[in-house]
Amino acid sequence: MDEARARALLGGARVARFATLTRSGAPSIVPVCFALDGDVAYHAVDHKPKATRRLARLAHLAADPRAALLADHYDDADWSALWWVRAEGRGRVLEDVAAPEAARALDLLAARYDQYRVHRPAGPVVALDVERWSGWAP
Amino acid sequence: MDEARARALLGGARVARFATLTRSGAPSIVPVCFALDGDVAYHAVDHKPKATRRLARLAHLAADPRAALLADHYDDADWSALWWVRAEGRGRVLEDVAAPEAARALDLLAARYDQYRVHRPAGPVVALDVERWSGWAP
Repeated sequence: MDEARARALLGGARVARFATLTRSGAPSIVPVCFALDGDVAYHAVDHKPKATRRLARLAHLAADPRAALLADHYDDADWSALWWVRAEGRGRVLEDVAAPEAARALDLLAARYDQYRVHRPAGPVVALDVERWSGWAP
Repeated sequence: MDEARARALLGGARVARFATLTRSGAPSIVPVCFALDGDVAYHAVDHKPKATRRLARLAHLAADPRAALLADHYDDADWSALWWVRAEGRGRVLEDVAAPEAARALDLLAARYDQYRVHRPAGPVVALDVERWSGWAP
């Protein structure tokens, strides 16, 4: 799959899964709502009770920035329509949500998700700088 | 979330995402169709063109067995209904699909997925021995 198609498929997904490394180097995964801006995928820490897990993820990135984001389409009735896209790279934690990049990311998230317009995430924002795209589609 | 609920939610999901470590220790993720049997989650290598990626995953597990499986529910219209479950543990590759554990895993997969009844996966089978459950649900 070429990068343009990978970007388009990921950019249209409503949810993706973000993988990081625990402090001991094991893989960990959480679902995220996100916004893609070229080769940077943003998601934000919001107010939901999963805050503890999300803070774990921030600690993971501080110790080792390597991360991956996956979106896929599944359809029980039609396996010929399945696709997935993976973006691999390095994550950065944007602590200051008033700084330009984080503010822009929160605007992009609010533009994609009604819930983020009602309750703007408190942050921080996580940016994934994508270094490699891969995927599979019919 | 207690383990029984985590097991029930994961066990009912139709697709999950499997995270492994690349040879250089970076996180990687792919979507999988799977069957849960107590604290072991099975998926199989089948005949689809993503075979190359799937073989990469087998090499990952041979080098470092640490792995995680995530299932989640997303609903744009109702974020109060979102949930996710994560199973972390160690993966094993069952090369001999005629051996009892792999044969049973393929039976479980065929019982869950029509497509696997029509085209039984060639294998190998990947078993994730779950050591820790976590999750979030309303």
